[in-house]
Amino acid sequence: MEINAKRLVENIKTLGRIGYEPEEGTTRPAYSKAYFEGEAYVADLMEAAGLSVRKDTVGNLIGTWQSTNPDSKILSLGSHIDTVPNGGIYDGTLGVLAAVECVRTLREQGYRPKHTIQIIAFEDEEGNVVGGTFGSKAFTGNKIDDAMIPGMQKQGITMEDVRNAAQNKDDYLCYLELHIEQGGLLEAEQKDIGVASGIVAILRYKGRMAGKANHAGSTPMRLRDDALEKACLSITDLLERVRRESDTMVGTVGTMEIHPGAVNVIPGEVNFIVELRDMDRRTMYGLVDRWAAAWKDRGLTISPYIDQEETRCDLRLLEIVRGAADSLGLKRMEMHSGAGHDLINMGKFTPSALIFIPSRDGISHSIDEYSSPKAIADGANILLETLLRVDRLDELIGKTDL
Amino acid sequence: MEINAKRLVENIKTLGRIGYEPEEGTTRPAYSKAYFEGEAYVADLMEAAGLSVRKDTVGNLIGTWQSTNPDSKILSLGSHIDTVPNGGIYDGTLGVLAAVECVRTLREQGYRPKHTIQIIAFEDEEGNVVGGTFGSKAFTGNKIDDAMIPGMQKQGITMEDVRNAAQNKDDYLCYLELHIEQGGLLEAEQKDIGVASGIVAILRYKGRMAGKANHAGSTPMRLRDDALEKACLSITDLLERVRRESDTMVGTVGTMEIHPGAVNVIPGEVNFIVELRDMDRRTMYGLVDRWAAAWKDRGLTISPYIDQEETRCDLRLLEIVRGAADSLGLKRMEMHSGAGHDLINMGKFTPSALIFIPSRDGISHSIDEYSSPKAIADGANILLETLLRVDRLDELIGKTDL
Repeated sequence: MEINAKRLVENIKTLGRIGYEPEEGTTRPAYSKAYFEGEAYVADLMEAAGLSVRKDTVGNLIGTWQSTNPDSKILSLGSHIDTVPNGGIYDGTLGVLAAVECVRTLREQGYRPKHTIQIIAFEDEEGNVVGGTFGSKAFTGNKIDDAMIPGMQKQGITMEDVRNAAQNKDDYLCYLELHIEQGGLLEAEQKDIGVASGIVAILRYKGRMAGKANHAGSTPMRLRDDALEKACLSITDLLERVRRESDTMVGTVGTMEIHPGAVNVIPGEVNFIVELRDMDRRTMYGLVDRWAAAWKDRGLTISPYIDQEETRCDLRLLEIVRGAADSLGLKRMEMHSGAGHDLINMGKFTPSALIFIPSRDGISHSIDEYSSPKAIADGANILLETLLRVDRLDELIGKTDL
Repeated sequence: MEINAKRLVENIKTLGRIGYEPEEGTTRPAYSKAYFEGEAYVADLMEAAGLSVRKDTVGNLIGTWQSTNPDSKILSLGSHIDTVPNGGIYDGTLGVLAAVECVRTLREQGYRPKHTIQIIAFEDEEGNVVGGTFGSKAFTGNKIDDAMIPGMQKQGITMEDVRNAAQNKDDYLCYLELHIEQGGLLEAEQKDIGVASGIVAILRYKGRMAGKANHAGSTPMRLRDDALEKACLSITDLLERVRRESDTMVGTVGTMEIHPGAVNVIPGEVNFIVELRDMDRRTMYGLVDRWAAAWKDRGLTISPYIDQEETRCDLRLLEIVRGAADSLGLKRMEMHSGAGHDLINMGKFTPSALIFIPSRDGISHSIDEYSSPKAIADGANILLETLLRVDRLDELIGKTDL
């Protein structure tokens, strides 16, 4: 069985035109006029695929194909259709529309699923309105951050609405999410499919390097305590440590403030943010501790302010994805997701798997975001094959639960 | 002959109280109410020392002791009495009040100078109102920067006023300036007096390190082109090159901007300002060229935007200063000035010498600026001894000109 690649690519492009500005990209944030227009388009596609469509109390769009088996659990698929400002047309959209295409194909082929199949377009994954992955947080009954309250109030969403959106995890069999990679690894390695073991943990630290501000003309080099020079040395040391530690860990310093910040004054203090991501938090804790200890006597202090745990995909589901890829002759690669997705919530709610297709030049969140029709077809076909294998799991392993 | 150290220190403290705010420091910018009050106090001290006092058309305060020898040239001494906001009480003030103390001592001792002696308190050396060393620029007929025009207009000063302030260099024998070091070298080396060979040249370059902005989560370390990491490496390399090049050159990066400047985005561009100071511009040009060439392929571009030539003190005057220091039993040290002074203009106008006394902890432009009474006395006494030796130069070398 194979999806209709031409139709899927057309649908992605049609949705991409909603909120699109030439030279700028697609701007379709959650709860916006463009978003509601896009949502109506997706609801139409879901109905054309034979799904019964509803919106929950926080705005998640849910299409359901009820199985004739009354005891069946729900095999869910999804992603999101909101975008960042001036975003691309593949991020999120691919996962929703490929799932709809899978169901449409199954219908056209007269397939009768053993499980209820559900496709969810989660609200505000990008977090430009209420907060990142708000829709899937509410859907899974995950805790709502205080920072989301003002955005909820602006949209007239109450805590009762949030509670009413929460589903019962016992009803779910699994969750499958297809997404563009948003990185350059598949392209660099010339692979078709990324089998993601999960979504990385994120640690962020506020770093402060103390030195001594002084006159840049009358203070000889040997009498200086230049906070910027020490910050530069410590940051390059940190990034080297990250490289030596593993192939998967990443470290980034994306912001820096220099005090007093004058061309003719030796910097007396430099503040910066260190971000580390990897699947294993303990490795990162150890690395940061050793780094901070090595620079402590030279004026470095760090304080943690974000510690977000990793999300692990289900090992059995991943094995099914691998089998599906191999059966389709696709070159697959083990990886993890450095970026967050709705699977952050779904992965703690029900066994989940995350599948990547290549992003050209690793670019996303931009008008230049692009994945080829071939990559899109590969992704949707592997999603379909995985869906079929999971749906027939009892035939394969003799039970109906993962 | 010896100056009255107690009186001098008292006078410095009295002037320092004009514009002083507890916990803040002394704020006495040019042309301000506090400045005019301070100026009146200095004019009184000049008159008490027997000088005839006048203000020129841009606001320089000039006290003159006319020699009885009608053909004599002018032996000038001076500095400034304006301060930066929340400045200290020694920067500039020392040079003016020590010169007044020298003349007062000479008067008290019944000395009759062969040369006309002139003390100038130059207007707006700190440049908080019109522009750096504005008064001495006008006095020496040096070119006024366009950037000074708005400040001049605000003070009602015309270009004709500037022209009328210009003196004839043929009338001058020399210029002597005593100043606090504003650095920690004399203190570190435990010396009493710094004999400054001149004021350093200043080169400033805009540096830009280009990389590629990308997702900080989904871009593996080996696929990154992190502009901040490269900027850090290139800056620490630059500072190492400066250290290796000479003991006197200094290099500073005091400002840096990171684009896009988000905690979760790999920096795509880093802009910073490089400042180098040393007596020898060619050495600095060579160093910068080699550094820029070494980093060009990794994304560094630099563009010069300030190239201020060095000011060299007069070698014969410096030898007189050394002799004076030795005769007083003061431990002296050869150095140069990393900071600008009115001598930048005077040094190109007439043979000049710059004499430093230690600054505690190298601090200046701050309420914590401090030089001890002993250091002040040493400085004033060496200024007096130098003045006497220059005034009697014909007895020493058989001619009345330097």
